[in-house]
Amino acid sequence: MTALTSFRAPFVVFLGDIQSAMFAKTAFGLAQWRGEDCLGQVRLPGCTVDVGVAELDLPAAIAAGAGSVVIGSAAVGGGVAASWVPFLCQAAERGLDIVAGLHIRLESLPGLKAAAERGGARLVDLRVPPTNLPVGTGRKRSGRRVLTVGTDCACGKKYTALRLAEDLRAAGVDADFRATGQTGIMIAGSGIPIDAVVADFLTGAAETLSPDAHADHWDVVEGQGGLFHPGYLQVTVGLLVGTQPDAFVVCHDPRRQHVGGWPDFPLPSLQQVIDRTVAIGSLTNPAIRCVGISLNTSAMDASERQGHLARCAAETGLPCIDPLVEGTGPIIQRMLQEFPV
Amino acid sequence: MTALTSFRAPFVVFLGDIQSAMFAKTAFGLAQWRGEDCLGQVRLPGCTVDVGVAELDLPAAIAAGAGSVVIGSAAVGGGVAASWVPFLCQAAERGLDIVAGLHIRLESLPGLKAAAERGGARLVDLRVPPTNLPVGTGRKRSGRRVLTVGTDCACGKKYTALRLAEDLRAAGVDADFRATGQTGIMIAGSGIPIDAVVADFLTGAAETLSPDAHADHWDVVEGQGGLFHPGYLQVTVGLLVGTQPDAFVVCHDPRRQHVGGWPDFPLPSLQQVIDRTVAIGSLTNPAIRCVGISLNTSAMDASERQGHLARCAAETGLPCIDPLVEGTGPIIQRMLQEFPV
Repeated sequence: MTALTSFRAPFVVFLGDIQSAMFAKTAFGLAQWRGEDCLGQVRLPGCTVDVGVAELDLPAAIAAGAGSVVIGSAAVGGGVAASWVPFLCQAAERGLDIVAGLHIRLESLPGLKAAAERGGARLVDLRVPPTNLPVGTGRKRSGRRVLTVGTDCACGKKYTALRLAEDLRAAGVDADFRATGQTGIMIAGSGIPIDAVVADFLTGAAETLSPDAHADHWDVVEGQGGLFHPGYLQVTVGLLVGTQPDAFVVCHDPRRQHVGGWPDFPLPSLQQVIDRTVAIGSLTNPAIRCVGISLNTSAMDASERQGHLARCAAETGLPCIDPLVEGTGPIIQRMLQEFPV
Repeated sequence: MTALTSFRAPFVVFLGDIQSAMFAKTAFGLAQWRGEDCLGQVRLPGCTVDVGVAELDLPAAIAAGAGSVVIGSAAVGGGVAASWVPFLCQAAERGLDIVAGLHIRLESLPGLKAAAERGGARLVDLRVPPTNLPVGTGRKRSGRRVLTVGTDCACGKKYTALRLAEDLRAAGVDADFRATGQTGIMIAGSGIPIDAVVADFLTGAAETLSPDAHADHWDVVEGQGGLFHPGYLQVTVGLLVGTQPDAFVVCHDPRRQHVGGWPDFPLPSLQQVIDRTVAIGSLTNPAIRCVGISLNTSAMDASERQGHLARCAAETGLPCIDPLVEGTGPIIQRMLQEFPV
C-alpha cells in the first residue's frame, strides 16, 4: 500500500479548538506555502489560534468551492479531540475530502467512514509510511544533501528547508525538497512521514528518501525533532544518520527558553547542537559540517532582530538569517563555496 | 490488542537453512535460558548453524511431545525465506503452535493461516508492540535502572542482562529483567519489542517498560543495537533516553573487527561507547555512569580469556567479566557500592 500524498484543492484548514499556535504547524505551513490553494480556516468555539486567513464555516467553504478539509493541528501524540468529530462528519457527508497527517487513521474516528461513504468523500491519511522499507545500510550515496536540524521541535526546520530548496533553484542549482512530516508532504505532494516509521527501519527510510543523484544535485531534507529532545531525539538521530548530510543548518527560535511542552528540559545552545550533530552524523558522513543558522524572528522588531542575528553570527562564525525575511542567500553562498561543483 | 507473550512448552527451535550463528540469536538464547523446555532443533538442508541441542525432524518432535515450533533465526530485516514455509505449514497442520518474533506477521506467510486452522494450532507473533504507547516525557522515575549497551548487535546484551538480574536476586536485591527483543520476551514471558515500535513512541515505550518502583528496586533492561550502528542506532538512542538508566554495562565481543554485517563500519572502542552513552544518556539522567564491561569470551582458551579481561580492565578501570563464565559478581559489587540502598 502506498499512501496518498495529494488531495483535492482548494482546501480549508480545520483548527478544532486548540489554544497554542505550536500545535497548528500544519495550518500555518499550508497557509504560508500553499496559500494560493487555501480558502480559509474553520475554527470551533474556544479556538484561540488564528492562521491569518479568511474565517469560514462549512456552508461558506462549500460555496467557495472547497474540495478538502485539512486537519491543520497536531497535538502531542497526534490525536483528535472528540469535539472535533461532528464537524468532520458533516463536511465528509457534504462531499469534502478529509485530509490528516495523524498517527491515528481517520476511519477510526466514530462515524467518519460512514459519513464519507454517504457523501462520496475520501479520507486521506498522509502519515502512512511506505511498506517494505529497508534497514539502513550506511552506504555512501552520490549527490549532495543538506539537512535542517533544530534546537527544538517547531522552530523553523520545514520553512528553512522549503526556502533553501527554492533559493537553490533560483541560483541555478538542481535541488529537491524532501518532506519528512505530514505538513511537508502536504506541501510537496510526496515524502515519507519519518516519525511514523517502525523504529528498526528509520535510517533505511531516510536513505530511501534521498537516493543516489548526480554529483551536483542537492537534496534539501526537512528535519524532525531535536537531538536534545527527551521524547523525539531517536527520530532526529535516525534521520541524521540515514540522510548522511554533507551540510546542515541549525534552526532556532531565540525566544524559547526550554523544550516546547517539556518545561524541565532547557533548550541546548547552538554550539551544543552543532557539536552533537557532527558527532553523530560523522558515522555515515565524516565530512559533515554546519553551513548556517536559521532564526525565527517573526515576533521581533527590526532592531531586536538585527541584534539576535549579529550575536548569533558572532557566537558561531556562520551565516545567520531569517529565511522568511531575507531568504537563505548567505547560507547558499556558504554551501556552494564549501562544496564547489 | 495485547501481544501474546507465552506459548506452549516444550518446544523445538527451527533454524531454516541459515549459515551464520549471528542470525540465530533466538535459538541460542532459548537453548541457553529455557533449556529445560527445549526439545531440540529442526534444520533444513544447507543449514550450517548448530545450537548444540538434539537434532529432530517433525515426526520426532511430535513423538517427543512438542507443543510449539519457535522460529529461532532472525535475518536482517526480520524475514522468512520461502523455502522455510512448507515445514512451518506441515507443523501447524499437525497441531504445533508456530511462534515467531519477526517484523512480518506469521499469517502473511502463504498457506500458514489455513494450515493452522486445519491443525487447530495458534500463530504467535511476539514482535507486536502494545497499542497506545505514549510519547516519552523524560520525567524522573523512582527506583534504579541498569541498561546493557554494546559495541555492536549480538554481542551479549541479553545474556548479560539476564545474568545480572539472576545474580542481583541471588544477592538479595529486588530486581526484574525487562525484555526488549523477541528472544528476551520468549524467555521472560513479557516485555516490549522495542525495535517494532513506531519511531515517535520509542522513548515512551522504554519509559513504559521500566515504570516507577521502590527506591532500592533495580530494573535490568535488555539493550538493543549499538550507538555506532548505521542501521539501528536510533533504537539504541530511544531505549537509552527512555530508560534513563543510573548505570550501564558495555557488552563486547573482542574478536569482532567491524559492525556485524556492515563491513565498512569499524567497531567503536569501549571508551567511545562509554563516552557516547554518557553524553546522550545524560539528557534524562545526568548521574548516569558505566559500572562494568561484559566480554563474550566463548571462543577463547583460558589464557587468551584472561589476557582479554585484564587488558579491558586496565583500559577502562572497570570490573570486566564474562557473564557465562564467572557471572556478574564484580559488576554487582560495583553497582551496590556506587548506589547504596
